[in-house]
Amino acid sequence: MKKKVVLAFSGGLDTSFCCIHLTKDRDFEVHSVVVNTGGFSNDELKEIEARAYALGVTSHAAVDETENYYNDSIKYLIYGNVLKNSTYPLSVSAERVCQATAIANYVKKIGAEYVAHGSTGAGNDQVRFDMIFNILIPGVEIITPIRDLKLSREAEIEYLAKHGVEYTAEKAKYSINKGLWGTSVGGAETLTSHQSLPESAWPTQVTETESKKVELTFEKGELVAVDGEQLAPVRAIQKLQAIAAPFGVGRDIHVGDTIIGIKGRVGFEAAGPMVIIKAHHALEKHTLTKWQLSWKENLASFYGNWLHEGQFHDPIMRDMEAFLTSTQSTVNGKVFVELLPYRFHIIGIESANDLMSNKFGSYGEMNNAWSGEDVKGFSKIFGNQVMIWHKVNGEVEG
Amino acid sequence: MKKKVVLAFSGGLDTSFCCIHLTKDRDFEVHSVVVNTGGFSNDELKEIEARAYALGVTSHAAVDETENYYNDSIKYLIYGNVLKNSTYPLSVSAERVCQATAIANYVKKIGAEYVAHGSTGAGNDQVRFDMIFNILIPGVEIITPIRDLKLSREAEIEYLAKHGVEYTAEKAKYSINKGLWGTSVGGAETLTSHQSLPESAWPTQVTETESKKVELTFEKGELVAVDGEQLAPVRAIQKLQAIAAPFGVGRDIHVGDTIIGIKGRVGFEAAGPMVIIKAHHALEKHTLTKWQLSWKENLASFYGNWLHEGQFHDPIMRDMEAFLTSTQSTVNGKVFVELLPYRFHIIGIESANDLMSNKFGSYGEMNNAWSGEDVKGFSKIFGNQVMIWHKVNGEVEG
Amino acid sequence: MKKKVVLAFSGGLDTSFCCIHLTKDRDFEVHSVVVNTGGFSNDELKEIEARAYALGVTSHAAVDETENYYNDSIKYLIYGNVLKNSTYPLSVSAERVCQATAIANYVKKIGAEYVAHGSTGAGNDQVRFDMIFNILIPGVEIITPIRDLKLSREAEIEYLAKHGVEYTAEKAKYSINKGLWGTSVGGAETLTSHQSLPESAWPTQVTETESKKVELTFEKGELVAVDGEQLAPVRAIQKLQAIAAPFGVGRDIHVGDTIIGIKGRVGFEAAGPMVIIKAHHALEKHTLTKWQLSWKENLASFYGNWLHEGQFHDPIMRDMEAFLTSTQSTVNGKVFVELLPYRFHIIGIESANDLMSNKFGSYGEMNNAWSGEDVKGFSKIFGNQVMIWHKVNGEVEG
Amino acid sequence: MKKKVVLAFSGGLDTSFCCIHLTKDRDFEVHSVVVNTGGFSNDELKEIEARAYALGVTSHAAVDETENYYNDSIKYLIYGNVLKNSTYPLSVSAERVCQATAIANYVKKIGAEYVAHGSTGAGNDQVRFDMIFNILIPGVEIITPIRDLKLSREAEIEYLAKHGVEYTAEKAKYSINKGLWGTSVGGAETLTSHQSLPESAWPTQVTETESKKVELTFEKGELVAVDGEQLAPVRAIQKLQAIAAPFGVGRDIHVGDTIIGIKGRVGFEAAGPMVIIKAHHALEKHTLTKWQLSWKENLASFYGNWLHEGQFHDPIMRDMEAFLTSTQSTVNGKVFVELLPYRFHIIGIESANDLMSNKFGSYGEMNNAWSGEDVKGFSKIFGNQVMIWHKVNGEVEG
Repeated sequence: MKKKVVLAFSGGLDTSFCCIHLTKDRDFEVHSVVVNTGGFSNDELKEIEARAYALGVTSHAAVDETENYYNDSIKYLIYGNVLKNSTYPLSVSAERVCQATAIANYVKKIGAEYVAHGSTGAGNDQVRFDMIFNILIPGVEIITPIRDLKLSREAEIEYLAKHGVEYTAEKAKYSINKGLWGTSVGGAETLTSHQSLPESAWPTQVTETESKKVELTFEKGELVAVDGEQLAPVRAIQKLQAIAAPFGVGRDIHVGDTIIGIKGRVGFEAAGPMVIIKAHHALEKHTLTKWQLSWKENLASFYGNWLHEGQFHDPIMRDMEAFLTSTQSTVNGKVFVELLPYRFHIIGIESANDLMSNKFGSYGEMNNAWSGEDVKGFSKIFGNQVMIWHKVNGEVEG
Repeated sequence: MKKKVVLAFSGGLDTSFCCIHLTKDRDFEVHSVVVNTGGFSNDELKEIEARAYALGVTSHAAVDETENYYNDSIKYLIYGNVLKNSTYPLSVSAERVCQATAIANYVKKIGAEYVAHGSTGAGNDQVRFDMIFNILIPGVEIITPIRDLKLSREAEIEYLAKHGVEYTAEKAKYSINKGLWGTSVGGAETLTSHQSLPESAWPTQVTETESKKVELTFEKGELVAVDGEQLAPVRAIQKLQAIAAPFGVGRDIHVGDTIIGIKGRVGFEAAGPMVIIKAHHALEKHTLTKWQLSWKENLASFYGNWLHEGQFHDPIMRDMEAFLTSTQSTVNGKVFVELLPYRFHIIGIESANDLMSNKFGSYGEMNNAWSGEDVKGFSKIFGNQVMIWHKVNGEVEG
Repeated sequence: MKKKVVLAFSGGLDTSFCCIHLTKDRDFEVHSVVVNTGGFSNDELKEIEARAYALGVTSHAAVDETENYYNDSIKYLIYGNVLKNSTYPLSVSAERVCQATAIANYVKKIGAEYVAHGSTGAGNDQVRFDMIFNILIPGVEIITPIRDLKLSREAEIEYLAKHGVEYTAEKAKYSINKGLWGTSVGGAETLTSHQSLPESAWPTQVTETESKKVELTFEKGELVAVDGEQLAPVRAIQKLQAIAAPFGVGRDIHVGDTIIGIKGRVGFEAAGPMVIIKAHHALEKHTLTKWQLSWKENLASFYGNWLHEGQFHDPIMRDMEAFLTSTQSTVNGKVFVELLPYRFHIIGIESANDLMSNKFGSYGEMNNAWSGEDVKGFSKIFGNQVMIWHKVNGEVEG
Repeated sequence: MKKKVVLAFSGGLDTSFCCIHLTKDRDFEVHSVVVNTGGFSNDELKEIEARAYALGVTSHAAVDETENYYNDSIKYLIYGNVLKNSTYPLSVSAERVCQATAIANYVKKIGAEYVAHGSTGAGNDQVRFDMIFNILIPGVEIITPIRDLKLSREAEIEYLAKHGVEYTAEKAKYSINKGLWGTSVGGAETLTSHQSLPESAWPTQVTETESKKVELTFEKGELVAVDGEQLAPVRAIQKLQAIAAPFGVGRDIHVGDTIIGIKGRVGFEAAGPMVIIKAHHALEKHTLTKWQLSWKENLASFYGNWLHEGQFHDPIMRDMEAFLTSTQSTVNGKVFVELLPYRFHIIGIESANDLMSNKFGSYGEMNNAWSGEDVKGFSKIFGNQVMIWHKVNGEVEG
């Protein structure tokens, strides 16, 4: 009887190679699975399925994880306003964790003893897949043909051709990964330290030329309506993405530390995610206390980094999610955003939980809730220890 | 003999009122002092001096603290990429601390027993002035006529008129504060939660319509050249500001927590500071290790907040400066920036300290510095504890 | 009609003075209330009540907050292993917050328009009471006779005598405060920097001379059994306290920062709390992941400091409690403790959630769950970035 | 010509095996080196040298790193009061990093192309050695016979016997590691979760029965005198160790996370280090500001963990050392300690930098430096935001 292997399949060159290699060279019974995290249309999924069977798999499955992806990760990335290195919404990082987890569950479901992924030996994905498989399906052997064989793309294409599979020889200049939380664009310029991507490289071309206003409604930190239309969060993200992407906003290049210690650079386009995070953060600045804002920043930074490194299943992540969820109880209200070609800005917010109520005195204006004497006393006591420090340490002769 | 008071003087309505009030109503000998932190031209300083004498001061002094301001604060704000709430470069906060410190030193220098400032009772400045005076000149009595008398602007104008001083009755719609590290714009829309500033409110109007490239050179974290021209850091900031401001970049609205606990909202225009911080940060992403980036973020966030709250003289600030300075030893190189109307982006960097050297393997590309087996082992050990946790806690049946 | 004031009453000199002063000098209708946080016996409460009526109060109430005290504060102090400055279990700090909150609720309940407390002007308690009243009952006026009048103890005693109330003139050498979470001892030596308390000053004298073993059982971080006897947490704490106190353990002197900026020093005896915290921490070291331990330390340190400063009602505290609660799901098991005169130590633990299972390899011993090659690969990748840093920055010629 | 290998040699079973194995089985020219970090006497070093030559090494060297060990690591562990998991002074962790670094330098000095260490596959040391060699001497091949061959101690002993080397067959019940910063004791009970070490297992037996007072003098955070005798820090540590060890203080069991993800447990005896850390911390509580204490705790916790994980050469460690050094400028004075059998306590401190000066008001006592009104104002403003939060969020009807 043949050994059963589950192959994480995307329909691309690497995983196509794996299909044939595992079937023909290594005599496996291949069960391919594609995990949809919001990046594939139904047509694309059908095409992937057809391709899988054409490559000789025994079975193929498409698992839709979009809702789980939102509930398990994206929701918390919004709560935490997570932008790695103040820039990158972790579009791919969060997705890989979701996919690896779904594949591990699929392996358990069909009782396979092997699992394969097509990662190369130089990126983050190999660690995320390996590690999550080690954690969730520790008995299952992991097979990584591309990493092990160190084949060039040319060699892979030649190999496929030899097995009667056509693959367009022209290497796409950029490698693109699309999901609910953004699209990454790597290759060419991003492999250098000094070049940015040309206009043509961005997946969504700019077609909007006028200003447009959008109103986002949040409830306990979740996006629940766009322009007044109530939507499930996943739909709301998709709707906003459709509105904002043609403005060319949310584009940038992320330079960051890979899990394996080298620096990596990648372009990304994440119009929806970027608008949501900035809008959500604006609402929080009005509704959270100083220390809530400060600690959220601190925890969310770690949460994002640890997720990036594939450590989603560490229980500390659940603890931080409990913290983040607790902070969102007052993050309710509307945020007004203006979109313009290549940029957007937050106009303002409206919230019943707004702490900037002029009932309590306005910044820089006259007030009646406290007296000048109160502030005089406050300033004295607030500076007391440092005053003593300077006195004691003789730096003041005053 | 009359009692000597040093008055922090800007030439505005509030401090003009203080001049007359202290001289006439309270029989002080007033010594006015204006502290320049890079926001006043020589002509403006002369005008302020003339005004002071016209208002009856016994002496007037202008203290230029621009270099100290850079060396004591701005330098570290750059090292730390400090943006309060990911937005605001602390333009005014840092300046007030510098001014209060300079005034305290001036009080000691001329041996005054009183010091006066014109802050109202609803903002941050009163605390910064009060507290720094309490710390640095603890024996000196602080006088705050505006806060104590709670006068309206109309009442102040009337008072001045009564004493033969004309002040244009038309209240400026916005209160503007200009310094080396940015210009703040408060009033009207910023007093609400839901409105942004109109185009006309911004101090610098947009006159550039084409794209322009700028090259910034950093040495140990300091900006030392703009477009190849070597400059002292203060001059380099000013040059970049002159280039960037007409593009309308670095504008935003900051919503934040005041020291006295209310929320405040203020517009700011800080083209130079914003381009510098983003460029400096880009260079750091290439030259610092993962944990340097992470800890810098953490410390700099506190450093900025504590500076904002006027606690500059707490010795913890010196300790953090020692930390920040140490991190900058490898932050050397050029950053390429593209300016466009209302936006800018970092093109890339060039640095002898760039850790993204392809000698060590490129992200996502084939590599030779380590093997697939190395990463397989890494993934296993890196996930070891979480694997054990799931096994022990029975959440995995795998 | 007389104005109604609620007086936080303990029966001591200061609050006795307040009773008469408020009734006689200021013509208030005084409603005294004593909040029991586990420090008073029924007899003591009766005595306090009798004393209150003798001092002329209109009504007196005793509010038992012991359970709330545990559920709102102590539970989280245990979850967080909170020892301020690695030393002090916050015995008094947590108690005052609980008392101030209970008093605020009592003020609302009886509809008083004034609230009074007997704090002096040099400690933490005044801030805790003032602030919590400002937060929870913002319309109610706060009266603080001792602070305002700056009376000496002698003057208070004389005043009481004049009103026919005897108070033993001999000032207790130490001021003692007893509650569920420990007893503080201040005065004499603690007012210096260089002296420790003499043996006789400690509330519980050492009567145990032999070693005794105790077994503590925790469920989700809560102490639920002592020596196998299942008890509600409050009872369990009390039982352990009764066992451990005669060993003279949990005594120390805390030196810390007061809310008002001066340094304070106070002795404390907290046998039960100290044994619980060390036992709970030991259990956590076996059952939590590395980052859970690390982040708990970080958050709990702030949580303790912020509680100490009376900021219990900041919503960040609720968020941290959500975090801490989440971390405790696996903190289950037994801890074995040995008590000896003046010291104790943790013998070990037993837990179904123990991550130190030798199924996964023993520290320093042979193992089979991973290979030498795995660790070799791990070490290579784990040090990759720092290797690159040294190469790039030329500090290594190797 | 034979290949040159540098062998990290301690004279124990594992490295004795390595000597013969590398010489005889693998035909290497073995250059053994022992790194002294304060744990070896001259006699022991001579014995180790004799043993090395008896085992057939081509050359043997003893490198004294005690001063470097203090200056590069221990000094900062004292500055940071570093106790891993609030318990363990990192006795072994810091030492291994120092040894690995010294060996890497020796490899460079004699131009070897191979380096060998005797670590097993289940502990921390293998990662520390591997990684530091990868970082500092990246071209040099690392050989680890014990880890690779997975030999039992019995097999090693048999192998040595076969090669004419006697090794006492009786396995020591405990494995002991002695250095300047403490002695670790592993084996038997420490391999379980529930047993503590018996009295006889501790390296230093308790011979002191009376109380003894010791006076420690610190200058900028360094221990510079013991009982008034001025000493270089290394000598001061050794003198204190000699005084304190016979009291049986500084003993405990550390449970912690190994670098490879499993939990480990080890006994340690560190009388000197523990007394120094507690004394140093006491002095800091009197001389540092609140935020200095708080941030030191935060950074030092990471510093200790990262050192423990062998990441000493990450430049973030230099940045943290700069921070820690800056904090020590006011950590000057004497600390009075009382030693008793099995315990010690800090009596108090004396310092010109003591912030607990009663010139500025004493805790809980009457004061004159500020008024009741000042604190009233402070409390109002200090609680302002939380008051507003409760008002806005309707949790208060007050």
